[in-house]
Amino acid sequence: MIPTITAFDSSPDRGQGLARDMRVRWALEEAGQPYEVRLLSFKAMKEPAHRALHPFGQIPTYEEDGLVLFESGAIVFHIAQHHAGLLPDEPHARARAIAWMFAALNTMEPPILELQTAKFAESDKPWTAERLPLIKERIRYRLGELAVRLGDADWLDGAFSVGDLMMVHTLQRLKPSGMLGEYPNLAAYVARAEARPAFKRAFAAQLAVFTGQPPG
Amino acid sequence: MIPTITAFDSSPDRGQGLARDMRVRWALEEAGQPYEVRLLSFKAMKEPAHRALHPFGQIPTYEEDGLVLFESGAIVFHIAQHHAGLLPDEPHARARAIAWMFAALNTMEPPILELQTAKFAESDKPWTAERLPLIKERIRYRLGELAVRLGDADWLDGAFSVGDLMMVHTLQRLKPSGMLGEYPNLAAYVARAEARPAFKRAFAAQLAVFTGQPPG
Repeated sequence: MIPTITAFDSSPDRGQGLARDMRVRWALEEAGQPYEVRLLSFKAMKEPAHRALHPFGQIPTYEEDGLVLFESGAIVFHIAQHHAGLLPDEPHARARAIAWMFAALNTMEPPILELQTAKFAESDKPWTAERLPLIKERIRYRLGELAVRLGDADWLDGAFSVGDLMMVHTLQRLKPSGMLGEYPNLAAYVARAEARPAFKRAFAAQLAVFTGQPPG
Repeated sequence: MIPTITAFDSSPDRGQGLARDMRVRWALEEAGQPYEVRLLSFKAMKEPAHRALHPFGQIPTYEEDGLVLFESGAIVFHIAQHHAGLLPDEPHARARAIAWMFAALNTMEPPILELQTAKFAESDKPWTAERLPLIKERIRYRLGELAVRLGDADWLDGAFSVGDLMMVHTLQRLKPSGMLGEYPNLAAYVARAEARPAFKRAFAAQLAVFTGQPPG
């Protein structure tokens, strides 16, 4: 049975691949799993029909064979558990790959989301210009730690895993800030992930929604 | 083999149970799994010996039989997978319980962490008093959605699960703000979790570290 995911009908990032359906598309492409997409307006996301699937009125959701899931982390993990290619088989390596997924979502992403909140929800506030360097300092602290751990390895722990997928998608949100370029091994890590055919297919598919043109 | 976790030797919350070792202790108690604790100073957490276990120099870590894990979400999930009592057996219910764990860590916790950052890292800034209501507004938006979904149920999706454990521990951080009391069903949900014998044992154990007295 082909799963159905939801995505923005008009992504606020204009097809840059930062919306969270991108994580799910990428995981599905890595897994070689075809999928269908149901597009939603901002208004439809907050209506009862969608809230029944997603209590926080967001995208993406995932529907398959009577199962309804929300939260991109949970959906990507579900895909990784049920398809080869995203989690190692060896139990300890598998647990460590899962740990990196949580590190992306709960250690790396919160300060990055603060930057986003400052730039969008508080862009008109008099304090934002002065706050941005403080937020960036907190992000740099984490980036520095991640750069040390990654060193000159290709991926965070052995082969590419769902931990890398989630970390790379979290780091991509920093691209407009230029901060990633301060950590050459992290910039190379993101570029390495973006060169994966599965990433490219997923990126093209979400961009096609925004442009209205079929993926090249 | 008895696992070893790490915790603060002097918790910054003075034993209120907000440090992230509490999540792991609680999961281990729910699972009926004995554990050992290695206490660390702030200084020791940032040194190479601990960084080898935890790339971000934090607590908790989890060591068992050659496996080293970091990130409280990953550790709690690992415990839930390997012991009865924290995840349903039925595959769809299991996936939904995991989704709630991610919702706690990646949807509910980020705005709550912003409140903490404002109160501690930016307490001396001239803008903080004016920012706090904005942050609280963002938290209330999520609390309102969660309260609607919970309704008059005891737990988020059927029986108590690792999703409830993680959500309750995330909500507990709001206690000093008084915001939880604005949502009576969420306050009752947290109180219901705190009445669990496993929670009480875990809470007493972490408090005992701070007071230096054995758990009552």
